[in-house]
This record gives sequence, C-alpha cells and structure tokens, in this order.
Amino acid sequence: MSETPAQSDARETGRTEAFSDGVFAIAITLLILEIRVPHLEEGQSLVTFLLNQWPSYVAYVLSFLVIAVMWVNHHNLFKYIRRVDNIFLFLNSLLLMFITFLNFSTVLLADYLLDPNNQQVAGLVYAGTGFMIAILFTLLWRHASKGNRLLDKNAHPGLIKAIDDQYRYGPLLYVLAFGLVFISIWLSLALQFGLAIFFSLTDSSQIRTKYTSQ
Amino acid sequence: MSETPAQSDARETGRTEAFSDGVFAIAITLLILEIRVPHLEEGQSLVTFLLNQWPSYVAYVLSFLVIAVMWVNHHNLFKYIRRVDNIFLFLNSLLLMFITFLNFSTVLLADYLLDPNNQQVAGLVYAGTGFMIAILFTLLWRHASKGNRLLDKNAHPGLIKAIDDQYRYGPLLYVLAFGLVFISIWLSLALQFGLAIFFSLTDSSQIRTKYTSQ
Amino acid sequence: MSETPAQSDARETGRTEAFSDGVFAIAITLLILEIRVPHLEEGQSLVTFLLNQWPSYVAYVLSFLVIAVMWVNHHNLFKYIRRVDNIFLFLNSLLLMFITFLNFSTVLLADYLLDPNNQQVAGLVYAGTGFMIAILFTLLWRHASKGNRLLDKNAHPGLIKAIDDQYRYGPLLYVLAFGLVFISIWLSLALQFGLAIFFSLTDSSQIRTKYTSQ
Amino acid sequence: MSETPAQSDARETGRTEAFSDGVFAIAITLLILEIRVPHLEEGQSLVTFLLNQWPSYVAYVLSFLVIAVMWVNHHNLFKYIRRVDNIFLFLNSLLLMFITFLNFSTVLLADYLLDPNNQQVAGLVYAGTGFMIAILFTLLWRHASKGNRLLDKNAHPGLIKAIDDQYRYGPLLYVLAFGLVFISIWLSLALQFGLAIFFSLTDSSQIRTKYTSQ
Repeated sequence: MSETPAQSDARETGRTEAFSDGVFAIAITLLILEIRVPHLEEGQSLVTFLLNQWPSYVAYVLSFLVIAVMWVNHHNLFKYIRRVDNIFLFLNSLLLMFITFLNFSTVLLADYLLDPNNQQVAGLVYAGTGFMIAILFTLLWRHASKGNRLLDKNAHPGLIKAIDDQYRYGPLLYVLAFGLVFISIWLSLALQFGLAIFFSLTDSSQIRTKYTSQ
Repeated sequence: MSETPAQSDARETGRTEAFSDGVFAIAITLLILEIRVPHLEEGQSLVTFLLNQWPSYVAYVLSFLVIAVMWVNHHNLFKYIRRVDNIFLFLNSLLLMFITFLNFSTVLLADYLLDPNNQQVAGLVYAGTGFMIAILFTLLWRHASKGNRLLDKNAHPGLIKAIDDQYRYGPLLYVLAFGLVFISIWLSLALQFGLAIFFSLTDSSQIRTKYTSQ
Repeated sequence: MSETPAQSDARETGRTEAFSDGVFAIAITLLILEIRVPHLEEGQSLVTFLLNQWPSYVAYVLSFLVIAVMWVNHHNLFKYIRRVDNIFLFLNSLLLMFITFLNFSTVLLADYLLDPNNQQVAGLVYAGTGFMIAILFTLLWRHASKGNRLLDKNAHPGLIKAIDDQYRYGPLLYVLAFGLVFISIWLSLALQFGLAIFFSLTDSSQIRTKYTSQ
Repeated sequence: MSETPAQSDARETGRTEAFSDGVFAIAITLLILEIRVPHLEEGQSLVTFLLNQWPSYVAYVLSFLVIAVMWVNHHNLFKYIRRVDNIFLFLNSLLLMFITFLNFSTVLLADYLLDPNNQQVAGLVYAGTGFMIAILFTLLWRHASKGNRLLDKNAHPGLIKAIDDQYRYGPLLYVLAFGLVFISIWLSLALQFGLAIFFSLTDSSQIRTKYTSQ
C-alpha cells in the first residue's frame, strides 16, 4: 500500500471520529422531536399548554448539555489517541449506543417528571443512562492507555496518570446521581445539571498544556 | 505530542465545525417532517387538503432559508477563528440548541398561523428563537474576538471592528421582528423573510477582502 | 490571514460539500420512516399487510435511487468548482430544500398511488419536485460556469460546453415525466425509474477524461 | 484541472466514505425512535410497561451492533480502494438502501417477536435484510477487486485472495440465519448476535498486516 502507516492510522482515527461526531450530532438534534406541539381543543389556550409542558424543556436543555459535554469529552479523548483497534471500536459503539439511548431516557423523563407514581423510575433510567456513558468512557480510556496501547508513543506518563484520575470520578458522580433519585429526583437532576455546566466550563486542556509544554 | 500546536488547533476547530455542520444539516432536513400527509376521509380531495395547508409550506421555506443563512454565517465566523476554548464550545452548544429548537417553533408557527387566538403566541416563540440565535452569534463573536483571544494573531483591527458592527444589528433586527408580532404576525414574518433573503445574497466577504488585500 | 487564497477557497468549497452531503445523507435515510409497521388487529395476517403496502416499497426504492443519483451529480459538479459565492450558496440551499422536500413527495406518492381519485395529484407533486431539482442543478451550473466565475481558471471550454449540454436535458426529461402523469402515472414513474438507473450507470467522468487528458 | 489524478481520486473516495458514514450514522441513531414511551392509563405501572417491552431492547441492541459492524466492515473495505466508478457507487447506494431498511426490519422484529402467528415473517424479513447487506458487500468487493479495477496498483494478490475468502462466508452465514428462522427465531437471532460480536472483536487487520509488512 502506498500510504505510510502514520497516514493510514490518521485516516482510521479520523473516520472513527467522523462517524462518532455524526452520531452525536444526530442524537443531539433528535432531542427536539421530544417537545410536542399540541392539538388544542376548542377554547384551550396555547400559552397555558406551552407553559404546562415545562418538564419537556427541562429535559431538553439538560440532555442537550449532557450530549454536548460528552461530545467535547469524546473530542478531547481523541487528542491522545493515535490508532484504533477492534476492541476500541466495539467499546466506542457501545458508548454511542447509550448516547442515542439518552433520547429515549429524555422522553421518559419529560413525560413522567410530574407523575408521583412513576417519576422515580424515569429518573433512575435517566441517571442510569448517564452512568453507562461514564463507565464506557472510562473503559475506552483504560483500553487505549494501558501500556500506551493506542496512544502517542511519546505521551507523558504524568499526563496519562492525570487523565486516569479524571475518569475515575465520572462513574462515581453518576452513582451519586442515581442514588439521589431515591431521595429526590430534583436533587439528582440538579447534580446532573451542575456537572454538565461544570464540565462545560472547566478547561481540561490545562492538564494537557502542563505536560506538553515541558 | 508529535503534532505542532497549529495542526492541533486546526483539528480542534475542524472538528467543532464538522459537529456544528452536522447539527445544522440535520436540523434543516428534519424540517420536512413538519409537513403532514393527510389521511383523507371518503370524498375528501387531496388537492384541497394540500392547498389548505399552505401555512406549513410558508413556515418550511422560511425556516429552511433561516437555517441556511445561519449556517453560512457560522461558516463565515470560522474563517477568522483559529482556536476554540471551553467557553466558546459552551456558547456554540447553546447556539446549536436554539438552531434545533427552531424545528419546534416552525411546527408551532405552521399549526397556529391561521388561528386568531393563538397566532400571536406562535409568532412570539418563532421570532424569540431567532432573537436567541442572533444573541448567541454576537456572544460567540465577542468572546472570540476580545483581545484577539481565539483569532488569527495578524487579524486586522479594522476587520474585527467591521464584523463587530455587523453583529450589532442582528439582535436589534430580531427585537424589531419580535415587536412587530404585536402589530401583525404577517409583517413580522415578512421582515424575517426579507432578512433571510438579504443576508443570503449580501456578500459579506467584501469586508474581508478589503482588509486582507492590504 | 495566514492561509493562502487557494487554501481558503478549498476550505469553503469543502465545507459546502460537507454540509450538502449531510443533507443528502439525512434525506436519503429518513425515507425509511415512510414505510409503516402495522398495528394488526385480531386475526389479520402480517404477510398480507406487508404485501399490500407494495406502493411504499416502490416509492422508497425510486426515491432512494433518485437521491443517490442527485448526490453523485452534486459530487461531480464540485469536481469543477473551485470557489463559492453567496448566490451559489443560495441556489445550493434551494436545491437542498427540494431534495428534502422529496421526503414529503415520497410519502404522498406511497399513500395515494392506488387511490384513483388522487394518484394524479400525488404523481404531479412527485414529478414536480424532480423538475425543481433538475432546474436548480442547471441554475447552479450556469451561475458557476458563466465566464468561468467559480471554476478552475484553466477549465477547458469544450468541457464546460459538454456539461452545459448535459444540464439542458435534465429539466426537459422531467417536463416529460410531469406531462406523462396526465396519461398514466405508471408511465411517468417508469420513466423516472429508468432515468435514475441510466444516470447511475452512465459514467459522466468520460467527458471529463476526454478534456483533461489533452 | 490543477489537481493531480491521485488527489482527485482521494477526494472522490473521501466523499463517498463521508456520505456513506453519514448514512450509517443516521441509520444507527434513528434506531432509538423504535423504542416507545408509553401513554399509561390510570393505575398502570411504568416499570411493568418498560419490562414488558424487552423485545424492543433486544432488537435495538442487535441492530445497533449489526450496523456498527457493517460500518467497520465498510471502513475496512475503503482501506484498499483507491478509486470509485459509477457501478461501484450504484452498488454502494444499494448497500446503503438495505442498511437504512434495517430500521424498518428492526421495528417489525420488535413488534412481532412475541406474536406466535407473525414472528416467523418478522424474523425472515430481518434475516433477509442482513442477507442482502452481505450480498451487496460481496458484490462491491468483487467489482472493486476484479483485475485490480479500483484497488491500489501494488495490492498484494495474496491479500486480495484472503479478503475474497472472507467475503464468501458472509452471505452463507446469513442464508443459515434465514433458514434457522423456520426452526426457531431465537436460534436465528442468537446466530446473528454471535456473528455481530465475533466480527466486532476479530481483528481483520491482521490479514492486512501479514501482506503489507513484507
């Protein structure tokens, strides 16, 4: 083959990123289909209807932020990855499966957030989806970083250690969000919302700069 | 890392553009799901039905043009941007959130355009979505251009000033479109349609040429 | 700006192609949503239902081929285009609007193909959508090729002439397909199916090779 | 034209890959729309409903894995392909058509898996879709590899032979899956699930390494 191995590697990670970006972009855009347009009956007011479906907007905004943060996270992961293998692609597929599953969890949350009998189930499915996503990110990183399997050969051990530490927290925080549903779904959603905002605005590239500027 | 900082920057802005393009492309394509195919009852005429749902076509064409113009605008923005940071990505996510929200506003507009009791609410949601998009474009540009934070180091101050001025008008015009709904939804839609056509056909690259040819 | 004009042009046409590819890919994939899965009632047979909805499969296959051919056509167009301007982007947006509109026309065709009172209307909308797509391709090419406006400076005049001739036929053939609906919708669909197969398998790159090998 | 033929070829295969990736990404993401959110009636339990629709989750996970494996397969194919012609693009379109058709087959499978009268029909449509995909992959490869038509000129004959052998099995295994439906749909689904996992985790790049390291 006339490509060099490095070019071929770049094409492979490039196409994996492009495919994943496609799934993230579609999953985030399909969220809007969840917000319903009413078929009003005689004498009903559109404003009242729109205001009453506020749980749909809450679920929409939260899931939009979560998927956007997960996309940035995925995008950051690929800064360190130079090759992909089939186990990596398999774990990445499972990750994308739960990203798209969030669409279902979002509709469930929106529809049952105000139903006292069922809100807990909807909250557990929602937080559980986030937990699976966090676990799969950790597995992806572990698989890629173990013995520098899929990373740049010159990656700084301190950098890898620092990212390892970061990925340890994600699943734990989602275990907390899952547990909080049993106390109050609102507390759980507030935590998940806070996490999404916090991760959106924290610049994880500082870790990187620290180790690459040496 | 074996990439140069410039290559790494280009990859980052490149992936942000690709993800955003994906969201724009999906949002613009999903608009068609709004136009309904009737389940006719005995003796009803398909032609009559298709002609009667003209508000759906109006809303479809308007929103298609608006998203297309917003995409060109987004595309133009990235001509000047050389790096992204997390605040930029966060603002970009909010921008994309309102782009996808336009799908909801479009269905609302199509369904209630001919309902005298509710057309004003539908019109306010529609113009309000456009206003939020315009505000977020302005915030994105302000964040990127302040002190040349994310721009090319050699960007001409006159160029930045000229684009600043452009972005000042967008939100103001949408405030006007929002206010016009209280007088007449048709006037408001005519303004928004005119703006979409005007921005489609105005070549904003002239500003750029002026400053880069020096 | 540190990019050369040629690099900047390539990025612009590249991003226009990527956005258009996204719309084509989504429009072609959404077609499947048109084929319905039945909610059978007691005693009804799934096989019978699936066989009875054969017009849905006809409409699906025809529209899939049409969009695929249009995508290849769009892809071929960009072999010659080196720059984009705002009028080009505007015409391209209108082209994409009718590509996505084909989703609506397809559902209409599938639902009314066997309804003797309404099949003609559905057929006219379907052929009319194809006609608009053909017209917009011609306008796109005319705008780009006039005085070599957006083409490679060294493009061979014979090549441009040969493509001009090709684009003359598209709209005419769709006028014929439109007219045939008044005689028989089956004849019209057969023509459109034949055209899709013919354009799929004709290698238009031969024209190109003839003029670029000199 | 100022591009070299090699650059032009790379652009063409690149755009075909990008379009195909888009269709794969959308098809895999739309699968989630199949899982329904219930409109519960008074006194019904959400948990019971969610547990009862387990066939939807089975169909979702199986189809997600199948499309992911097919995407990796498509991605591997393009490692060897250097040019595309119109017959290749036509076969690729047919392949993508059956990939998107899998969305329909998945809903059918989910809805009729527990219906003893109709599960066999749903199973045959599902396995039949997989069979068509396998056949089209074989045809694509045959067309590309015959006389090195679309491959790298220096491709090793042993490599081509090894991939030929691989592609011989795919359709046969799906014939088996199709036939097994007549004995038991569960056996057929187990085989298809096993195949998806097996192909996910088998590293076909070993074949490639063997022949390119010489």
